[in-house]
Amino acid sequence: MNETTFRVRYGETDRMGVVYHTAYIDWFAIGRTEWLRDKGMSYRGAFEEEGLYLPVIRVECTYKNSVTYDDPVTVRTTVESFSPTRIRFRYRITGPAAILAAEGITEHAFLDGRAGKPVNLQKARPELFEALETIVASRPDESPRD
Amino acid sequence: MNETTFRVRYGETDRMGVVYHTAYIDWFAIGRTEWLRDKGMSYRGAFEEEGLYLPVIRVECTYKNSVTYDDPVTVRTTVESFSPTRIRFRYRITGPAAILAAEGITEHAFLDGRAGKPVNLQKARPELFEALETIVASRPDESPRD
Amino acid sequence: MNETTFRVRYGETDRMGVVYHTAYIDWFAIGRTEWLRDKGMSYRGAFEEEGLYLPVIRVECTYKNSVTYDDPVTVRTTVESFSPTRIRFRYRITGPAAILAAEGITEHAFLDGRAGKPVNLQKARPELFEALETIVASRPDESPRD
Amino acid sequence: MNETTFRVRYGETDRMGVVYHTAYIDWFAIGRTEWLRDKGMSYRGAFEEEGLYLPVIRVECTYKNSVTYDDPVTVRTTVESFSPTRIRFRYRITGPAAILAAEGITEHAFLDGRAGKPVNLQKARPELFEALETIVASRPDESPRD
Repeated sequence: MNETTFRVRYGETDRMGVVYHTAYIDWFAIGRTEWLRDKGMSYRGAFEEEGLYLPVIRVECTYKNSVTYDDPVTVRTTVESFSPTRIRFRYRITGPAAILAAEGITEHAFLDGRAGKPVNLQKARPELFEALETIVASRPDESPRD
Repeated sequence: MNETTFRVRYGETDRMGVVYHTAYIDWFAIGRTEWLRDKGMSYRGAFEEEGLYLPVIRVECTYKNSVTYDDPVTVRTTVESFSPTRIRFRYRITGPAAILAAEGITEHAFLDGRAGKPVNLQKARPELFEALETIVASRPDESPRD
Repeated sequence: MNETTFRVRYGETDRMGVVYHTAYIDWFAIGRTEWLRDKGMSYRGAFEEEGLYLPVIRVECTYKNSVTYDDPVTVRTTVESFSPTRIRFRYRITGPAAILAAEGITEHAFLDGRAGKPVNLQKARPELFEALETIVASRPDESPRD
Repeated sequence: MNETTFRVRYGETDRMGVVYHTAYIDWFAIGRTEWLRDKGMSYRGAFEEEGLYLPVIRVECTYKNSVTYDDPVTVRTTVESFSPTRIRFRYRITGPAAILAAEGITEHAFLDGRAGKPVNLQKARPELFEALETIVASRPDESPRD
């Protein structure tokens, strides 16, 4: 599990006075970047610079309560599932007073950026696959749904 | 059903060279704005200026093929379901050569913007509810999944 | 001169109720894409795919009147100056009833994307330089300031 | 002077591989929010919630060196000039190894949000005007150009 906190930017709000719904999806991306860094694997260094990408193939988000400009928001990120061909992150975004603002998931394939093709991570990068598997397996009790 | 076509903006791409995944969610919003206009009800005029909002309470998007800068993209929008308290739009986004880029849904509540509370559209705005119901009922065969 | 018209997106507004100031800079990019297309040179085809980039090295924008969601806006684009190492576009953005919303400029260098270095366009791509020079020279009286 | 540091988001890059030029303008907004907070006046609390807005009437930005995804960037913000009707902020954005990425200014009017009209801050809010004047006057030597 990783938690990262930052303040809402002015431009992330819309004319309803609160955060526009796509901003939360941007924040999911911050969440998974920080989850990976937390585990010692920067996405840029351990993945992109090795020609390995994690394109988003599915996103879901449910909106619960609005947040607005200058509110501190916290993204809590976990890995919900992991296989040789997919990784699925779960996010829980809270605003002031820990109110639940939104929750959702992103699902990613593993892509060989040079070949432009999906890869089986276990075959293509066994050491990276095992490192991720160990991390995910060692945290059975963590869930952003708690 | 409504179709609207426009070109991908440069800033909508990311360093993978293709459109960043949140841009598609922005395009969904274009799709429903144009669906409403098509039916004679501008969101700004018929909803917002009457104090009625359709906040997004759920979004889902599945990504199929990438599109990039300057590609013409088409958003095909339909209403998937409609009740006194919810409306659910479905979107199908295609790129050059009609290739399927992404598809998804957004679900919306009806919100009284002055009271800041959800409303039952059938009670709060019977004429608007009936107009929408008639539109949706009259198009039973349209589906962006066809 | 090129004019391109489109509607303001919901997400381009902020909690003041009107378009957030960075959106206009995004619209400048639409303006120059369309200016180039108008002249028969798509930025993607005639520049990027040939390894030639026009990175922004300077932007200025003055805001005059606000526009908001669903307003039709028009970007009028001209080339203000052109040399072997620089091109400067000028933009004039108008909203409903042709009210002036904003005006500004962007200045660009010519960059060899493979070498990652600025280039003298006249030496590196004499035919492209001449084509642009002819276009710019043939339109001495056009100005978005008129 | 205020310094605030954060990491570049993935979605802030474009297909050139580096940060899209409008993101810097978004970061300017972070800079002035933090400058105000630093001086004990949150923009949301001391301005917006009192019906006072600081709309951007002019922006300028010069781009020097690119930064990209996951780079830590620092925005250094100062007030360049201040009068009863205008405030002008100056920003200096640096990336890794303190390399200069961009610098620029934003100029703002004071707007009475309820009346929708510009105001003379010295007359409309003398205590706020004096507080800002004292802050600006007490920091004569600070410049992001140093």
